[in-house]
Amino acid sequence: MQNKILKFDGGAAIVSAASVVGKYEYEGPLGDCFDLHDSTDKFGMKTWEKAESEMQRLAFNTALAKVSASEREVDALFAGDLLNQCVGSSYGLLDFDIPYFGLYGACSTAAEGLMLSAMMTSAGYFSTCAAVTSSHYCSAERQYRTPLEYGAQRSPTAQWTVTGAGAFMVRREGTIRIADALPGIVVEKGINDASNMGAAMAPAAVDTILRYFRYGDHRPEEFDLIVTGDLGWEGGSILCDLLLAEGLDIRSRYNDCGMMIYDREGQDMHGGGSGCGCSAVVLASHLCPRLERGDLRQILFIGTGAMMSPASIQQGESIPAVAHLLRICHNADSNDEKGVR
Amino acid sequence: MQNKILKFDGGAAIVSAASVVGKYEYEGPLGDCFDLHDSTDKFGMKTWEKAESEMQRLAFNTALAKVSASEREVDALFAGDLLNQCVGSSYGLLDFDIPYFGLYGACSTAAEGLMLSAMMTSAGYFSTCAAVTSSHYCSAERQYRTPLEYGAQRSPTAQWTVTGAGAFMVRREGTIRIADALPGIVVEKGINDASNMGAAMAPAAVDTILRYFRYGDHRPEEFDLIVTGDLGWEGGSILCDLLLAEGLDIRSRYNDCGMMIYDREGQDMHGGGSGCGCSAVVLASHLCPRLERGDLRQILFIGTGAMMSPASIQQGESIPAVAHLLRICHNADSNDEKGVR
Repeated sequence: MQNKILKFDGGAAIVSAASVVGKYEYEGPLGDCFDLHDSTDKFGMKTWEKAESEMQRLAFNTALAKVSASEREVDALFAGDLLNQCVGSSYGLLDFDIPYFGLYGACSTAAEGLMLSAMMTSAGYFSTCAAVTSSHYCSAERQYRTPLEYGAQRSPTAQWTVTGAGAFMVRREGTIRIADALPGIVVEKGINDASNMGAAMAPAAVDTILRYFRYGDHRPEEFDLIVTGDLGWEGGSILCDLLLAEGLDIRSRYNDCGMMIYDREGQDMHGGGSGCGCSAVVLASHLCPRLERGDLRQILFIGTGAMMSPASIQQGESIPAVAHLLRICHNADSNDEKGVR
Repeated sequence: MQNKILKFDGGAAIVSAASVVGKYEYEGPLGDCFDLHDSTDKFGMKTWEKAESEMQRLAFNTALAKVSASEREVDALFAGDLLNQCVGSSYGLLDFDIPYFGLYGACSTAAEGLMLSAMMTSAGYFSTCAAVTSSHYCSAERQYRTPLEYGAQRSPTAQWTVTGAGAFMVRREGTIRIADALPGIVVEKGINDASNMGAAMAPAAVDTILRYFRYGDHRPEEFDLIVTGDLGWEGGSILCDLLLAEGLDIRSRYNDCGMMIYDREGQDMHGGGSGCGCSAVVLASHLCPRLERGDLRQILFIGTGAMMSPASIQQGESIPAVAHLLRICHNADSNDEKGVR
């Protein structure tokens, strides 16, 4: 049963998706796709942490507005972020009187929240669920590395934490169908360099992807896109190599949210994007609309999270990681008129 | 739908529960009930954080052993803790090749994990789920307040973080039935004193309990016990007063895991116990065996979590809180022979 692929026969679909980003994300190749941005990265707040919460509030409000829904129609929130004690979510969504399930999945949080939302709507526990997550470059630097004012130099493999929040609403019926899913197992392969999280997370993605193809009915060729979030350039290339060594060549259809969000040449972001917000805003702003239109017919979305803390690294531990997989399809039969955009 | 009480018609039951605690918990009134303890609080580890992870590993292993199960029989883990980035869980459960859903619910984590486990087994997604959580006095002091070596004085309402880990296995059939549940809404009523978390969490418990009796079919008189975890003496008395003002008198059947775990007179624990481990080990070691035997026929178990961080308090924010409710019953009809103890 541990390798059982979860089917959502009762129905699960992303009916609304919204994204809020900061300056560098807006200046990147997907800039035009995002719903809201603030080039000060502050969103009117006095601290970076409050700015992150405000992004979640804005993202969720925008997701509601896109389908003309009120908060009363949302039965459950699945939310989490990178900040200690996940305060980006608990404060950011405090305005909403909605049952709240707090998650911690690091950069896999969007995938984890969508998976739980799909399970809940398909099983009939809730009619409408929402998955919300965020990250903020400045709050993450202060917490994980060094406050910005220190001007510390970054290593070439270091990923850049995306300033962004994504919110998704999930119901039974809709054009962007969550067809099935495979939850990840926490794996750790000895990487203890927090400036190379892509390398730490790649083995988790390998584990989940191999299990998905081994125990499921699908082949890589069926997918328009196999997209991880967020391994970056270093981790993404490790993933492809490791899968190739297992006889699985996904290179022609592979991409990574951390590689898509910034311009590798034009923006000096080293290893690419990361953070809970990265895969969330790329899925919400870029992939969901393409799935909605049918430009993408079927994708695998694999959220990858590095589950260490600064304290665990200081104590000499390696980095555990997890990867949650979702198969998401354009549902041509859907007569749902309310679109993602 | 937001006040919909979740029914587990497909079946959900706690089939195994295990607890691991430290010195003061073992010396308290429930000392004899716990499965394992270490009076050094170190569990053979070099750091408090690693000791906390080790408690989770031991607790989950013990829960497996009680029903002679191997890790292969467990389809999903729902786990979280208080440490930054929830590393107590990600490292503590790393040995087990089991799909992992990371949670952050502060002291409500045991209730949140059990609720999600019950939803998953009842809906048929998984046959066996496990909910695991922990807290450690020394790792919590270092992170939230001051390292022990500072010898800082505690305020009278401050709660004592329990050193302990609890693990539960949930299947469809069993004597200790999880009958229904109501997830909590995050509320914040202006308390910003992190040394008085009971007062911050009481309004969340009030909200969930009132909604449960207002929208459900049950009355307080039906329950042998209405137990929160963990409001402590201060928060517990606030809860009873606030409910009384709403016309609901639960005092004769009320208790709190934070009040039960320590001897108020003999152990100088100020406000009582707290931490993810508190409600987990009291439920696992004391309440589950009584439910198994039928000494308790039906209880309401309300996990309460304070969702702030040291940074959010330093930035002048108040403390948001959440309370997840479970109705747990002795299932007289169960012919399951494998008991909790």
